[in-house]
Amino acid sequence: MRIDILSLFPRMFDGPLHESMIGNAIENKVIDVGVTNFRDYTTDKHNHVDDYPYGGGAGMLLQPQPIFDALADVQEKHPAKGRVILLDPAGVQFNQSVAEDFAKEDHLTFICGHYEGYDERIRSLVTDEVSLGDYVLTGGELGAMVMIDATVRLIPGVLGNAESAPGDSFSSGLLEYPQYTRPADFRGLKVPDILLSGDHGKIDDWRLQQALKRTYERRPDMLVDLKLSGQARQMLADIQADAEDL
Amino acid sequence: MRIDILSLFPRMFDGPLHESMIGNAIENKVIDVGVTNFRDYTTDKHNHVDDYPYGGGAGMLLQPQPIFDALADVQEKHPAKGRVILLDPAGVQFNQSVAEDFAKEDHLTFICGHYEGYDERIRSLVTDEVSLGDYVLTGGELGAMVMIDATVRLIPGVLGNAESAPGDSFSSGLLEYPQYTRPADFRGLKVPDILLSGDHGKIDDWRLQQALKRTYERRPDMLVDLKLSGQARQMLADIQADAEDL
Repeated sequence: MRIDILSLFPRMFDGPLHESMIGNAIENKVIDVGVTNFRDYTTDKHNHVDDYPYGGGAGMLLQPQPIFDALADVQEKHPAKGRVILLDPAGVQFNQSVAEDFAKEDHLTFICGHYEGYDERIRSLVTDEVSLGDYVLTGGELGAMVMIDATVRLIPGVLGNAESAPGDSFSSGLLEYPQYTRPADFRGLKVPDILLSGDHGKIDDWRLQQALKRTYERRPDMLVDLKLSGQARQMLADIQADAEDL
Repeated sequence: MRIDILSLFPRMFDGPLHESMIGNAIENKVIDVGVTNFRDYTTDKHNHVDDYPYGGGAGMLLQPQPIFDALADVQEKHPAKGRVILLDPAGVQFNQSVAEDFAKEDHLTFICGHYEGYDERIRSLVTDEVSLGDYVLTGGELGAMVMIDATVRLIPGVLGNAESAPGDSFSSGLLEYPQYTRPADFRGLKVPDILLSGDHGKIDDWRLQQALKRTYERRPDMLVDLKLSGQARQMLADIQADAEDL
């Protein structure tokens, strides 16, 4: 997969693109990433890429010309079809299913804004407008890194065993059950006896019950459309009854 | 504000902590940031920080000892009270109001996990368990950077005029209206006439109507609890009627 990033702050990607899973994916040539500073494309003699909004208002807007021309250059060099993604708070919320869609593409291009916002015409260039969540960030760079991380780890062959995905939250539709590793007694804090019992049927039941309980307490919205087994439905009914008794 | 980050991949923060708004806030001594590799605190002779889960299962878990001891050291050096935040998919969803709470603190410490997850006992150390959104990331580092960005920009004096916050999405409760800057005609794509009219009353009405329309189309959930003026309520009713006519 080819990934291009259009940004005014290419150095922000220095660490994240050289470490951990993304760094390994680049080294193993599973992905190939380029960061383009669209300031290099401005035709403005002072190298400006932003200007005041028409109609008044605070802040500066990114002008269309540098981004149009930087994207055209990227697409000429890397013509593989794919998505052009605008990082924007007014976009659709990024989630695991968006990451799964992105992971199937041959080419992703992220346009990272800064300052108050984009000239509206920049939206005509993109296939997707995506928001990281309901919070305001200074620029799109961190959002692009998050989306790249969530996407690239889904490409087959990228994850090693130590980081393997099967028990991940959201893939089961439930939050993760509590997990413990050695030592069994850490400064008086002990691992639940059941996990030391060796009885895998009971351990599986305990884990399901704990995952249901945590999801019920913290993210009941995740349970609404979830298909549960008969055993899980009974466990959840018991958890609800206990909660109502309090 | 003092910010500490506990991470196995300190180099991931190299770019993001030296550029843009966060870089400026550090240079201007508004914030002071330290990144601690908790692998430096392990008492394991092979420098391991993770081990297999009790009860079986895929992946490795972070052990309690390195994180307990790294945090104790950080808190001894920087005793200001504050929050200890665990980046975890089972946490509460990060949003603008969490960022506003964090921005009032004197000390924030972010614990960034990796691999399959944390030993449950690590949760006993923290004041907050926070998730960036409904997607799976390789580690907590990118999430910590996002939360730091969203938080630090709310500290008074951090943002310059070019990045000022008044028109930001979410502060008005509506998505941003379309914005335009020069040129008025870019390769045939034109700025709406109204924005060139100089009639500020009409421009304000158009912007409100466009913000309502975009929010209605993309994020109707944001309108549910929003208090609207009489004028805005009438505009929204018209937008709904138009949509139903289609």
